[in-house]
Amino acid sequence: MAATQPFTMDTGAVPWPLNAWYVIAWDHEVKRSLLPRTICGEQLVIYRQPDGRVVALQDACWHRLLPLSKGHLQDDGSLVCGYHGLVYDARGRCTHMPSQDTINPSACVRSYPVVERHRFVWIWMGDPALADPACVPDLHWNHDPAWAGDGELIHVNCDYRLVIDNLMDLTHETFVHGSSIGNRAVAEAPFDVTHGERFATVTRWMRDIEAPPFWAGQLGKSGKVDRWQIIRFEAPCTVTIDVGVAPTGTGAPEGDRSQGVNGFVLNTITPATANTCHYFWAFVRNYRLDEQSLTTELRQGVSGIFREDEIILEAQQKAIEANPGKLFYNLNIDAGSMWARRKLDRMIAADRGGSIAEAAE
Amino acid sequence: MAATQPFTMDTGAVPWPLNAWYVIAWDHEVKRSLLPRTICGEQLVIYRQPDGRVVALQDACWHRLLPLSKGHLQDDGSLVCGYHGLVYDARGRCTHMPSQDTINPSACVRSYPVVERHRFVWIWMGDPALADPACVPDLHWNHDPAWAGDGELIHVNCDYRLVIDNLMDLTHETFVHGSSIGNRAVAEAPFDVTHGERFATVTRWMRDIEAPPFWAGQLGKSGKVDRWQIIRFEAPCTVTIDVGVAPTGTGAPEGDRSQGVNGFVLNTITPATANTCHYFWAFVRNYRLDEQSLTTELRQGVSGIFREDEIILEAQQKAIEANPGKLFYNLNIDAGSMWARRKLDRMIAADRGGSIAEAAE
Amino acid sequence: MAATQPFTMDTGAVPWPLNAWYVIAWDHEVKRSLLPRTICGEQLVIYRQPDGRVVALQDACWHRLLPLSKGHLQDDGSLVCGYHGLVYDARGRCTHMPSQDTINPSACVRSYPVVERHRFVWIWMGDPALADPACVPDLHWNHDPAWAGDGELIHVNCDYRLVIDNLMDLTHETFVHGSSIGNRAVAEAPFDVTHGERFATVTRWMRDIEAPPFWAGQLGKSGKVDRWQIIRFEAPCTVTIDVGVAPTGTGAPEGDRSQGVNGFVLNTITPATANTCHYFWAFVRNYRLDEQSLTTELRQGVSGIFREDEIILEAQQKAIEANPGKLFYNLNIDAGSMWARRKLDRMIAADRGGSIAEAAE
Repeated sequence: MAATQPFTMDTGAVPWPLNAWYVIAWDHEVKRSLLPRTICGEQLVIYRQPDGRVVALQDACWHRLLPLSKGHLQDDGSLVCGYHGLVYDARGRCTHMPSQDTINPSACVRSYPVVERHRFVWIWMGDPALADPACVPDLHWNHDPAWAGDGELIHVNCDYRLVIDNLMDLTHETFVHGSSIGNRAVAEAPFDVTHGERFATVTRWMRDIEAPPFWAGQLGKSGKVDRWQIIRFEAPCTVTIDVGVAPTGTGAPEGDRSQGVNGFVLNTITPATANTCHYFWAFVRNYRLDEQSLTTELRQGVSGIFREDEIILEAQQKAIEANPGKLFYNLNIDAGSMWARRKLDRMIAADRGGSIAEAAE
Repeated sequence: MAATQPFTMDTGAVPWPLNAWYVIAWDHEVKRSLLPRTICGEQLVIYRQPDGRVVALQDACWHRLLPLSKGHLQDDGSLVCGYHGLVYDARGRCTHMPSQDTINPSACVRSYPVVERHRFVWIWMGDPALADPACVPDLHWNHDPAWAGDGELIHVNCDYRLVIDNLMDLTHETFVHGSSIGNRAVAEAPFDVTHGERFATVTRWMRDIEAPPFWAGQLGKSGKVDRWQIIRFEAPCTVTIDVGVAPTGTGAPEGDRSQGVNGFVLNTITPATANTCHYFWAFVRNYRLDEQSLTTELRQGVSGIFREDEIILEAQQKAIEANPGKLFYNLNIDAGSMWARRKLDRMIAADRGGSIAEAAE
Repeated sequence: MAATQPFTMDTGAVPWPLNAWYVIAWDHEVKRSLLPRTICGEQLVIYRQPDGRVVALQDACWHRLLPLSKGHLQDDGSLVCGYHGLVYDARGRCTHMPSQDTINPSACVRSYPVVERHRFVWIWMGDPALADPACVPDLHWNHDPAWAGDGELIHVNCDYRLVIDNLMDLTHETFVHGSSIGNRAVAEAPFDVTHGERFATVTRWMRDIEAPPFWAGQLGKSGKVDRWQIIRFEAPCTVTIDVGVAPTGTGAPEGDRSQGVNGFVLNTITPATANTCHYFWAFVRNYRLDEQSLTTELRQGVSGIFREDEIILEAQQKAIEANPGKLFYNLNIDAGSMWARRKLDRMIAADRGGSIAEAAE
């Protein structure tokens, strides 16, 4: 692998893997009503059946293309088109047509596999035969009683990979989030990068430093701290970040975090179109679990921080569009995002039927 | 003719006939002032001469293309460009240029044949030699003293043919207009379709039914009714709908409508661009002719109903653009619109010099 | 030269000369802060060094393309990227990268030659070796103590050449500015046109006329006047207009303007993109020099007049885009703008390596 090999943004027809699970909604977003959402370039309508199961269909009536999300749900869970009343079941089959008894056998819209897990609804956009729920990325902290927290969904006007780049290199905290979580220590501390078949990990320990304002507040103790950021990418689009601080000398780097505070930033990004994405995130903590006001405060605080990223990401996206074919060079700090993109490129190549070797490093 | 043959939306360079009369404005819209309007992809400026005759010119000065609608009319009816003062007469000939005595003989803008009829101003966008006022579609109800009513102009962001599809199949009333004129009877009643060289007719009688709220109010009598909808398409873009109800058993289906109430929905649609159109409509009635407040109430009521269609049509247009090449299948209910499109396709083919046989069914 | 030869708007890839000085900002606009501005299709960031010198760099970080204008300046004048903290000096060289000691030798952004003159900041977008400050167009009135005045910057949504056309033919005053400076005399008076290698001049004397409202107010005397407009184009984009009136019979046409009032409209236009431009203008006068309130009043008055032009120019631009390939014919009044375009076309051809003869008249 040549770390400094420049690359260009691949904006090909389908710049994302299809044979993968993507989050399409927070669980509480999906009700017995019609939610339209664009996922991987496809317009979908999402809703719950009377038994609670989630359905995701192509959002375009077979007959005249009206979005089915403009129609309505019947009590039995079937979906009625808002133009001519064609009725569809949860598998996307048309079960009724107006003014005729025979139903055209081709009359159906595509239905997608979905599973609910870790407070999210996940969809499989590729070959349904390959949709194995065991492959849903691990975000268990989001419903584990040992952790408390909350999150949001942001619609960001950029290529989903720019969000992954952003998360895989946190030196940007120093420059983008200087007033909250960033300080020079982040940009200056060394880090380790490892990777596996679908994972890439960036580990950074900043020892014996001043805590940045956010963490000083969470810890509630004065004095120097050891701070950690352990970023774990799981292809295609999930990034968990194990973050925290502990008073220096209490053994956190060696494994004893008992004197510190620990959080996880859970992130999973879903392509909407080539230049827009849905960014689902949560922040969970393992301390003061019962303080709902802290949960709210943290969600609002992280929200403000992510808004700073959003401004940067959207400016970067516009710049990329204004400079097609531009070569990007990798710095040392890009090692994590570079591996993440390698994993992504391999999945895309595999979808296209290319051998994995083609995309291999 | 194969009724179930699927088709795609032809969005070729000129997806409308040119050798045809189109409405460009209500008569009262055109005054001794400059009205810009885009018709069949051409930007036009429309105004009245001192003698009241309507003029329609290309809205672009020969010299530097400034829209002539940015200029002003002189008392003698000539039009002065708002940039350099070139003057044009009603035939579009330049009659004055600044700072020079000789006028370039090529200096003119295109002038189009227009006629006023049935309270509308009609234009002929094709070969002026073929512009025969006898071919103006029949909308005589709009000024016939036996009928009273009023209408509006809506600018709809969709292909003009989607409006025709909408009007040629009224089963959509059940699903789009359920609170006013729609009920299940419309979607369930059988109908007859006939067609001639430039006409297609859909006749639907719904016998012995509950009147929907709108018609119950107009009739002012309780009890079951016979309801009729006789839709008549005249190529390229005019659709009249003979609608009404009469108490069941009073003979309406056999021809005696004297105990009922009768209205005509007059519709004529003019392409603006490939994905926008001007939709002129009026609703006229043959009862309570002198009640101006009823006229206003009906115009407002129909306006609200058409707003429901507008939402559907614009959503459908966006879906068509998002799914290029999509095949459309016809249901039984599409027989009327299918014939309307056949007539349209023949006129387009004839414009392009193709034989009528080419486009024939 | 065939004065009546029609032409089309050349909207090729680079429809402007690159080897030329263009104004990018008023001097007071550029401070020790980051000003983003698009010039000749390139996004630039402009700022002052601690010693006051102006720097103009490509506004896109070498690393990940974030606009550098989203970053910040350090006290030593170096520019820090707002994403990952890469630091650039005034020559555009990267002098610091986060988390690494070695700097990639290719890490730089383009820096452009700039000079300050006549209260404007000028840039050279072409070959830096050809950037000779002696070639900056003459706008000395803008800082000459014998003249007083002020101006503005307008961002106009049109091809920069439409502004030049507008200024080179003032007959449009009659039709666009009828309420202030226009009257029929302007459209009717004869004029002389001369030209040199990079200049074109249009001279118009209107003798023994009623002063238009604006000039009557400036002169403050009743009676007929001689009015002059001497328009001088300097390629590529600068137009000065020597304007004024003097009482008829006091010798102005023969050279004695001492009884009159004289102003200069200073104009220089810089392409932003193919269909937008920055229009810098000032109005200076040689009378009542100390009256600051007159300066304000004149700036506001001219501002209102130029707003009338802006409406026309933007409508013209839209019409040109709607009519690609349209042929433009020249009238007598276009002699000045025609010569201006000839000079421009020669510069563009020279940039492209074509011989000057190719573009010659």
